[in-house]
Amino acid sequence: MAQWTIYGDRQSGNCYKIQLVCGLLGFDYDWVEVDILAGDTRTADFLAKNPNGKIPLLVLPSGQTLSESNAIINYLAAGTALLPLDRFELAKVQQWQFFEQYSHEPYVAVARFIAKYLGLPEERRAEYQAKQAGGNKALQVMEQQLSQTPYLVGEQLTTADISLFAYTHVAEEGGFSLSAYPAIQKWLGRIRQQAGFVTMG
Amino acid sequence: MAQWTIYGDRQSGNCYKIQLVCGLLGFDYDWVEVDILAGDTRTADFLAKNPNGKIPLLVLPSGQTLSESNAIINYLAAGTALLPLDRFELAKVQQWQFFEQYSHEPYVAVARFIAKYLGLPEERRAEYQAKQAGGNKALQVMEQQLSQTPYLVGEQLTTADISLFAYTHVAEEGGFSLSAYPAIQKWLGRIRQQAGFVTMG
Ligand SMILES: N[C@@H](CCC(=O)N[C@@H](CS)C(=O)NCC(=O)O)C(=O)O
Ligand SMILES: N[C@@H](CCC(=O)N[C@@H](CS)C(=O)NCC(=O)O)C(=O)O
Repeated sequence: MAQWTIYGDRQSGNCYKIQLVCGLLGFDYDWVEVDILAGDTRTADFLAKNPNGKIPLLVLPSGQTLSESNAIINYLAAGTALLPLDRFELAKVQQWQFFEQYSHEPYVAVARFIAKYLGLPEERRAEYQAKQAGGNKALQVMEQQLSQTPYLVGEQLTTADISLFAYTHVAEEGGFSLSAYPAIQKWLGRIRQQAGFVTMG
Repeated sequence: MAQWTIYGDRQSGNCYKIQLVCGLLGFDYDWVEVDILAGDTRTADFLAKNPNGKIPLLVLPSGQTLSESNAIINYLAAGTALLPLDRFELAKVQQWQFFEQYSHEPYVAVARFIAKYLGLPEERRAEYQAKQAGGNKALQVMEQQLSQTPYLVGEQLTTADISLFAYTHVAEEGGFSLSAYPAIQKWLGRIRQQAGFVTMG
């Protein structure tokens, strides 16, 4: 049995963040596949582990649980090269991660969900269209930073890059064209070349 | 001139988080009032400071800038009693802060914005109603934790409590009744009693 147990869905970018960090750091884990549409996150057993009823969820050897993808990857990366020690750089990692949850994921990931999982049904087409502007705004903010530095916080790969890689690398599945974002494309390539990189799925 | 400059709006809960942390820690700051509706966050000057065009924004003495309310308060609180040193507790602080940005603020703060700022116009009434279920779900998750521990991460006040105090203490302005949440009400009182507490506005 590995040290960590992860409850997740292999198609979810939020869950993939954890697989990717474990890959880069060479960490073993046990994986419990969770089917949201089948109601797996609404059972009494799952809600006892995460009262917010969401995956991913990390279970420690002690039985303690941790939710929220970005909190989980920062926990796993503590003391490794993926998290800077400098106070300001560490704050910048978190800045990009809160940006991801507030200004990127709700547009890019939700548009992808509507298109890829739901098959772009007529009644959600207006919402899908409305997500495009917000998603492109987030991609522009990333493009501007990545035109100046190879990674979001500077010269080094951090968990901020993992948080934003998760849904950016599949943004085209949500209708976003990455051809307008050359710096993002180069950055995606830089991450794919890391030792220990794993693909989603 | 104080060490920190904060760009913010005194009615915004995200901005209030920073005033509250500075109050509790006894930190001085210069405040630059920003009027979003007048377009202050869309000027070239502001966008150079935060390409994402949002307040709050912290400017350091070096001129470096930091955005995202929760990243800013964790930066300010580094090395103080508001941030635990224990790796798991620190991860739990972040868990609650990502929960705040993803599962609480988009419901509780947005409902308040529609009601208080926009005066609940007819064309946003359906959206306002739709926000009630998500907001109450977030409040239930908080209530469950606060029935077990005095603060969100345990025995000690942390920045996670500040992040969630900001919009929870004005949740009634968004149509949420706190009478169903006795543990939240006691927790609000505990925070109001802290030395250095400042009110919003
Ligand atoms: N802020 C959360 C978001 C997690 C999230 O939205 N998870 C989805 C799957 S990708 C989920 O569990 N949805 C089920 C539900 O909300 O009922 C994180 O970053 O972990
Ligand atoms: N995730 C951000 C949210 C900040 C936010 O939404 N700020 C609002 C005011 S409360 C804003 O600046 N809105 C202007 C805009 O988005 O154009 C944070 O926590 O700082």
